[in-house]
Amino acid sequence: MQIGIVGLGLMGGSLALDLKRHNLGDIIVGYDRNEIHAAKAIELGLVDKLVDFDELKKSDVIFLAIPVEGIIKTLQELKDIAHKTTVIDLGSTKEKIVKSCPSQIRKNFIAAHPMTGTEYSGPQAAIEGLYQDKIVVLCNTEENDELHKKRAEKIFVTIGMHIVYMDAKEHDRHAAYISHLPHAISYALANAVLGQEDPKSILILAAGGFRDMSRLAKSSPAMWSDIFKQNKENLLTSIEDFKKELRHASTLIEEERWEELKKWMEKARKLHEIL
Amino acid sequence: MQIGIVGLGLMGGSLALDLKRHNLGDIIVGYDRNEIHAAKAIELGLVDKLVDFDELKKSDVIFLAIPVEGIIKTLQELKDIAHKTTVIDLGSTKEKIVKSCPSQIRKNFIAAHPMTGTEYSGPQAAIEGLYQDKIVVLCNTEENDELHKKRAEKIFVTIGMHIVYMDAKEHDRHAAYISHLPHAISYALANAVLGQEDPKSILILAAGGFRDMSRLAKSSPAMWSDIFKQNKENLLTSIEDFKKELRHASTLIEEERWEELKKWMEKARKLHEIL
Repeated sequence: MQIGIVGLGLMGGSLALDLKRHNLGDIIVGYDRNEIHAAKAIELGLVDKLVDFDELKKSDVIFLAIPVEGIIKTLQELKDIAHKTTVIDLGSTKEKIVKSCPSQIRKNFIAAHPMTGTEYSGPQAAIEGLYQDKIVVLCNTEENDELHKKRAEKIFVTIGMHIVYMDAKEHDRHAAYISHLPHAISYALANAVLGQEDPKSILILAAGGFRDMSRLAKSSPAMWSDIFKQNKENLLTSIEDFKKELRHASTLIEEERWEELKKWMEKARKLHEIL
Repeated sequence: MQIGIVGLGLMGGSLALDLKRHNLGDIIVGYDRNEIHAAKAIELGLVDKLVDFDELKKSDVIFLAIPVEGIIKTLQELKDIAHKTTVIDLGSTKEKIVKSCPSQIRKNFIAAHPMTGTEYSGPQAAIEGLYQDKIVVLCNTEENDELHKKRAEKIFVTIGMHIVYMDAKEHDRHAAYISHLPHAISYALANAVLGQEDPKSILILAAGGFRDMSRLAKSSPAMWSDIFKQNKENLLTSIEDFKKELRHASTLIEEERWEELKKWMEKARKLHEIL
């Protein structure tokens, strides 16, 4: 079985490492339109071979590990793949991607979102075990052929993932709160500090808390502006919900309603009983 | 030399462990008005001995490892300590605390803020090495006797800390951005998610990013509402600055100005060149 990976950055590169580690596929071939990334990926031994896009299309399984706008474009170029070829995307949004999938390959196309990653990007960011013990959301699998669904499930389970099934629309609403909003907040926090008179003298005080909160702001702007674009409405709603909470806190502080502030904090703490 | 610690929670308990590890003080005595905490601290071997407050006042060095409002109250009860006794607080705000210090002991009182901690609290949260390689801010030390200043510096350096000197007012402004604002954001994010129809189905998707961003929301509400109270004005200003950034992002998303959004993210990323 030949497995092809489009996009040899953090997600695609780490996937290649895990596929090999678990003996999935006889050969892992890779394609990246960024030639520097492609060269780096082969140098690091992430994939067995670099191929051109036409060669990649002959794979039994094709992973799309590229920004979400790129996924939509690339799906159009996969209309003529073989009936037996499975296509799996790893994008952070799902509704627009699923909708954009050409009808000819809708049964072949598994819409997946692995809930994992790091703030780094590019082939040199690839690490073994990135997918181990993480959640992967599969969306609208009722529209898939059983063959392709089973194949995708087998791969994800073999690399150690836990599968959650969800409607694409629902996924995007949830992902806004759990992932896209936190990214927006992290970028905003970083810019709020950088906007101060002397950010260096503030940042000298940075400890674990601030580092955690600003870590996501290291994430790739190219990738994340695409995600924000595709999940625009849900993200804006989640930002409004968040701003409402922050505004409430501001009011309590402004009006010195400390007991209510404490209760608001206590309420937030309940999150960790669920998490 | 007897070192006394008021407050045997995360900060005080961890400090006791590090003082012992570095052979600082012949005996470490502890006081906690919460009897359960006191009993737990002695059971865990954090301090050598529990003492009453009058006995604690006879220490050569007294650490105040309690919430910031408690520090202000306790300083009033330390007016009659011996001339040679050093008092060091570990509070997250500094201006109001320094101002509240009785003039009789102003020379004895070292206003310190160690930039360390975890989201946990209580004696059972105490860990060795919490202070190692972390920053401690000392404020307005020009108002201290050289003896007390040198003594405090020696202790902090011995337990592995790096000292930064700062004006108390400046400290509070900086601490708002680097620590207090991130806590407010984290509580707000947690409450925004909990306010959704079915938070559980959202939280099942939580990965590293969300966990990092919501970690601070585990912090003690009693402690943090006190901090917010004491640093009210700076915190409100920092929240406004942050909201301005988030509002800007919302506008760019709303108006689909993706290139500008990407630039805004690129700008945020520069934080990590300094950090």
